[in-house]
Amino acid sequence: MNRIQRVKGTRDLLPEDMAKRRYVFERIREVFEAYGFKEILTPTFEYTKLFELRSGEEVVEQLYAFEDKGGRNISLRPDLTSSVARLFVNSFQTAPKPIRWYYIANMFRYEEPQSGRLREFWQAGVELIGSPNIEADAEVIALLIESYLNTGLREFTVNIGDRVLLDEFAKMLGVKDDIGLMRLIDKKDKMSREDFIKSLKEFGLSETDIEKVFTLIELKGKPDDVLPKAYELFESEIAVEELKKIEELFELLKAYGVEDYALIDFGIARGFDYYTSIVFEAIAPNDLGIGSIGGGGRYDNLIEVFGGKPTPATGFAIGIERLIPILESKGLLPEFKVGSDVFVAYIGKEIEIKKKAIEVTQMLRRAKIRAEYDIQGRKLSKALDYANSIGAKVVIILGKRDLAEGKVTIRDMESGEQRTVPIENTVEEVKKML
Amino acid sequence: MNRIQRVKGTRDLLPEDMAKRRYVFERIREVFEAYGFKEILTPTFEYTKLFELRSGEEVVEQLYAFEDKGGRNISLRPDLTSSVARLFVNSFQTAPKPIRWYYIANMFRYEEPQSGRLREFWQAGVELIGSPNIEADAEVIALLIESYLNTGLREFTVNIGDRVLLDEFAKMLGVKDDIGLMRLIDKKDKMSREDFIKSLKEFGLSETDIEKVFTLIELKGKPDDVLPKAYELFESEIAVEELKKIEELFELLKAYGVEDYALIDFGIARGFDYYTSIVFEAIAPNDLGIGSIGGGGRYDNLIEVFGGKPTPATGFAIGIERLIPILESKGLLPEFKVGSDVFVAYIGKEIEIKKKAIEVTQMLRRAKIRAEYDIQGRKLSKALDYANSIGAKVVIILGKRDLAEGKVTIRDMESGEQRTVPIENTVEEVKKML
Repeated sequence: MNRIQRVKGTRDLLPEDMAKRRYVFERIREVFEAYGFKEILTPTFEYTKLFELRSGEEVVEQLYAFEDKGGRNISLRPDLTSSVARLFVNSFQTAPKPIRWYYIANMFRYEEPQSGRLREFWQAGVELIGSPNIEADAEVIALLIESYLNTGLREFTVNIGDRVLLDEFAKMLGVKDDIGLMRLIDKKDKMSREDFIKSLKEFGLSETDIEKVFTLIELKGKPDDVLPKAYELFESEIAVEELKKIEELFELLKAYGVEDYALIDFGIARGFDYYTSIVFEAIAPNDLGIGSIGGGGRYDNLIEVFGGKPTPATGFAIGIERLIPILESKGLLPEFKVGSDVFVAYIGKEIEIKKKAIEVTQMLRRAKIRAEYDIQGRKLSKALDYANSIGAKVVIILGKRDLAEGKVTIRDMESGEQRTVPIENTVEEVKKML
Repeated sequence: MNRIQRVKGTRDLLPEDMAKRRYVFERIREVFEAYGFKEILTPTFEYTKLFELRSGEEVVEQLYAFEDKGGRNISLRPDLTSSVARLFVNSFQTAPKPIRWYYIANMFRYEEPQSGRLREFWQAGVELIGSPNIEADAEVIALLIESYLNTGLREFTVNIGDRVLLDEFAKMLGVKDDIGLMRLIDKKDKMSREDFIKSLKEFGLSETDIEKVFTLIELKGKPDDVLPKAYELFESEIAVEELKKIEELFELLKAYGVEDYALIDFGIARGFDYYTSIVFEAIAPNDLGIGSIGGGGRYDNLIEVFGGKPTPATGFAIGIERLIPILESKGLLPEFKVGSDVFVAYIGKEIEIKKKAIEVTQMLRRAKIRAEYDIQGRKLSKALDYANSIGAKVVIILGKRDLAEGKVTIRDMESGEQRTVPIENTVEEVKKML
């Protein structure tokens, strides 16, 4: 018969994968919690309408949308921000602000599987709800940077853009489809220079305007270099106010001690249409073809769109399937030994000796030592082969003669050395060997 | 506008809920790992065929089944056993046996929401693959018992039945639809005695046979009481062999030191049709209307059904949404303080004082103290109200005069006491107060 495979774009996570993920999750969680963020989790599916309302076209196209047996139109969540906004609107509008929430959860998007892009993937993210201040943007950006730092990553930058500035830029150029222009600029790195220029022309931009677009895109780097040029490019009062906020943002990032990891990149728009001002994405140079390893931004209108009182908010998500391979390629993940450290073998077939094997194994487990005994009842040589195959460091061998004297044999699997010790010393002796 | 609600049968998990779950997960995980089990995770959805193949009718009816954008028939997993069997068949058939895997994951079933039954729910479970021995059954039953014990639960039993015996029983009675009879016996507690007898008659059972059914159902309790009666009721060689295995099972459970929590209940069949011999379910008496808090059994045919070589296996799953309310009602869960323990307030609007507030907050965070500062820039009295609302134990107040002298004010939120300390002593002083 045909074996059933797993569905395209999904993956099985094996013990070593899970150990790595738990390690990375815990490093991120430590920082999230140190910043006073509290963990939440929303359902895996929501009414499809929730995801449609916020109007990010690409995301709606990629929804796993279906009808449940009760005729409800539901979709697997493509991210958690919509669900968090829904939760906030329904139950937390009158709670003290700001609200600091974080999540570590899986998301679903029907897109072509490619490097680091799976149809089911995990994100660790935060939402900071209820503050319109640049202090909130600074907090989430600093938190994002510290999260990466706590995983051991050092070669990365968080590149900061601004949707207000892009909007002002579109106005300056007299472009009506400002969102279209933003999207195009956002995708510049994925197209050739020629195609990009061609597309800009299709927006009706003149040669001078196109030059301005290139000036904008080159507004990239440290604020001391970039901001003076930006003040030259932009004229409107709104734009100047926004630039001042960004100046303040970088001042605050200095107080966090993370300014070395933050750059300006005014060509960033971020795909989702719900962002309203500061946006950012994290990039770690790599040979794996992996782009952004996380990102986020301010979304001051989303809660209103979902029927809530206008409430400012900002947040980010870290892409776990993008971060882990980069950490791994840089040797930043510890080696994990999964499964039993100790294997208990026995010689004989009687139930009494099996019970003794269980008792010794239980002594080890109660001392928090990972241990198993030979439930297969194999001969000793086969049992040792198995112990070897699971990477057990120590094998305890129970023989009738030893047991009659109240003793067991302990074997170091690396050196092959064996010695006999009183049964009551087993835990103590094993601990020395792990 | 209408606010969008969450979908029926799902729930949002708030910070206190998540803290409790993490606590319970960790208690269970400790035991799983001590037994040498290794964590895995399979995709949230699989080809629908995978779940249909194993033929548990009820489960197929309750599937969240749909077509993805590529025309694939997929379903959200109703449990993890099928996926684990699929993973085993595709990649682990030649791996050393036994394989010990565990998971902590969410499942989906479209059933009427009722006490402890959600459409999305979590299970912590294990699968022990590759051992036909009663030692394997004993191991997973001992592990199940120890998992509950490690959460603090003491009032519970794991009730053990046997599908082989039920099958032999059906044969003894000459019933052709043995699975139908098993299902009926399994549901006995959910129907009145009259309805149960009526249904038995519909199976063509005589008065004497019905009496035998009641004898079987009353084979419940400690093995010393039950087994002698069972040896009387059953005659076939197969049945007698099976009873001997159960005798051995209880001997082994004594070696684990968990025999006080194990009972025989030969009326148990468990819903899923894939079970082949020993089955069990855990019951904890409660006033919450919650039935089984976990269960499992041996499934020696499933892997073959999925196209693998015949491979014996056993396992269980713990129902997290059933366990947690019981632990809670018995006061077995610690109180969790979520969010910041320390709130940093400041007096003034200048960026320099904000930066100082960030620096002090960062000092605390680096010492692993959960802390936040006032990103809203409130007046002190409002800031203290907020600190109170989030349950902060300590507030640090930065004023210009204090700072000029290199000092900060520390306020104990419970007693209301305040004192001024050198800024470099902040972490040390706060630690004493937490």
